[in-house]
Amino acid sequence: MTSNPFENSAAHHLPRYAIALHGGAGGSPRLWSETVCREKRAGLAEALDRGIQILSASGSALDAVEAVVRSLEDNPLFNAGRGCVLNEAGEHELDAAIMAGDKPSCGSVTGVKRVKNPVTLARRVMTDTPHVMLNAAGADQFAESIGLELADAEYFRTTDQIQQWQKWRARISGEATETDEPNDPSGSSVRYFGTVGCVAIDSSRCIAAATSTGGLTGKRWGRVGDTPIIGAGTYANNVSCGISCTGTGEEFIRHNVAADISARMRYAGASLASAVNTIIHEVLPADCGGLISVDRHYNIVMDYNTACMARAAADSSGHRAVLLERET
Amino acid sequence: MTSNPFENSAAHHLPRYAIALHGGAGGSPRLWSETVCREKRAGLAEALDRGIQILSASGSALDAVEAVVRSLEDNPLFNAGRGCVLNEAGEHELDAAIMAGDKPSCGSVTGVKRVKNPVTLARRVMTDTPHVMLNAAGADQFAESIGLELADAEYFRTTDQIQQWQKWRARISGEATETDEPNDPSGSSVRYFGTVGCVAIDSSRCIAAATSTGGLTGKRWGRVGDTPIIGAGTYANNVSCGISCTGTGEEFIRHNVAADISARMRYAGASLASAVNTIIHEVLPADCGGLISVDRHYNIVMDYNTACMARAAADSSGHRAVLLERET
Repeated sequence: MTSNPFENSAAHHLPRYAIALHGGAGGSPRLWSETVCREKRAGLAEALDRGIQILSASGSALDAVEAVVRSLEDNPLFNAGRGCVLNEAGEHELDAAIMAGDKPSCGSVTGVKRVKNPVTLARRVMTDTPHVMLNAAGADQFAESIGLELADAEYFRTTDQIQQWQKWRARISGEATETDEPNDPSGSSVRYFGTVGCVAIDSSRCIAAATSTGGLTGKRWGRVGDTPIIGAGTYANNVSCGISCTGTGEEFIRHNVAADISARMRYAGASLASAVNTIIHEVLPADCGGLISVDRHYNIVMDYNTACMARAAADSSGHRAVLLERET
Repeated sequence: MTSNPFENSAAHHLPRYAIALHGGAGGSPRLWSETVCREKRAGLAEALDRGIQILSASGSALDAVEAVVRSLEDNPLFNAGRGCVLNEAGEHELDAAIMAGDKPSCGSVTGVKRVKNPVTLARRVMTDTPHVMLNAAGADQFAESIGLELADAEYFRTTDQIQQWQKWRARISGEATETDEPNDPSGSSVRYFGTVGCVAIDSSRCIAAATSTGGLTGKRWGRVGDTPIIGAGTYANNVSCGISCTGTGEEFIRHNVAADISARMRYAGASLASAVNTIIHEVLPADCGGLISVDRHYNIVMDYNTACMARAAADSSGHRAVLLERET
């Protein structure tokens, strides 16, 4: 059959894009029931499809990463938005950040309690205020002032996470701190960071990144991890790459991980794959976490030094993957 | 006269060091009374002498930057600790960070209200917890739990800053936000960022940096600037440099300023002077702020793109300067 030149022409003009997302590093699928694994994979796939839908319709990378992270925030299986882990007092404190690589511009929030989708609040900090970062009750007040959808404590606190917190309470002694304790739903000693994030590049070569988390089970003293720290857990720059991290946030802050990958590309001429490999396997301590990334050439790199990282990716050339185990 | 070889030998073995500090960028000495200028210079000199005293006795850069920033926090003429600016509600919310370039290790706090010296709290976060950043009431609770010196609201709120806040309140309309308003004590339209900071390198070639601030007069929604963001307003790495920034914090976060200077040195082979010059005069918007820095070769660079930056520096070769005007 003769090919239809109009079809070819149309195919040639399909919007070019690449997108990757994560649902946290650590843990192990072997410790989860087949049902939990299946549901997590379905959640990753559903979030990925939302991003693909936007990007394949010539939508922006910024819209795509926000929509994907919202989907994962709404999913009680991940530690962000609904289903987030609980702090020492049994309460939730949510962090999120978003960054667009064009100016670059960015927004972030830390310690929020009343906003259904912290990633959307972070985006509104970026677009509706002269600021980058808002904190705790002040961030919640800003959300209310712009009419963002709020939710009460019962919305965020799932039965699974209340049980997880009760197990944590039962385990801790006077000496133990949250960092000695696992977040794994199985209650095993394998730590699981259920932070969620997404990076994307759209047909206009704009790169965006977003990350959202509930932090660590039993966290105290208002601990803030890398998620809302621009340059640590979240970063995007159109001249290099977009990055979203998950893991022991303190190490990602100390090593300025997300921005350092961009800097290695810009100043040392490293490829995205090489820069990510160096950070994950040489700079960060072992069993520390992972990250997802896209560069301005539409390459996707996902890597981690934990046993596992829940992740998914797709691009306009037809590549599509949803991965929960150590497999490529 | 014949020189005494023991004296020469002793001189040769004097501890090598370099130290720089700032008391904020923006404003203009021309708008301040001669008394205010003299007192600010005296405050900078006193803080500098504390640092010199530590470093010249072979003390650590980390001890020196903490002591210098404490001195400036205790001085009501600078916007950190006592004498900090007041937020929209007329309350104080303090941010601080400290970083040691050896591992590197770091600590920071944001939105604290009860700790007399936030920089010391940041150091205790670094040394006494597995965390990097603590937030708001949680950070104050941690301070209390380790017996850190607390202070009540009356300690922080000086008559000058209450008057400054009252002027701000009188000026704002329904549309105005804090970013439209000056922090200048004269009440003029020249913005002044009284953030304080210090960087130092000691005889062991260890580099440290610390920054402390009350933020912006009339700030709201729990706004967080660059001061407590590791990699933005504060950064130290023994392989490159130490940096402390002051100015429009949002721009310093967007451009990951402090860590980016280190990255340009490490990955592009830039000198400290060249990297700082690029950031201040090419990357950041005009009239945005400034920074102080030392590198591992004991070079000191202080630069800004505002009209003025209160600053001081000294090193073991005998260089010493206290500068409040645009002069070198």
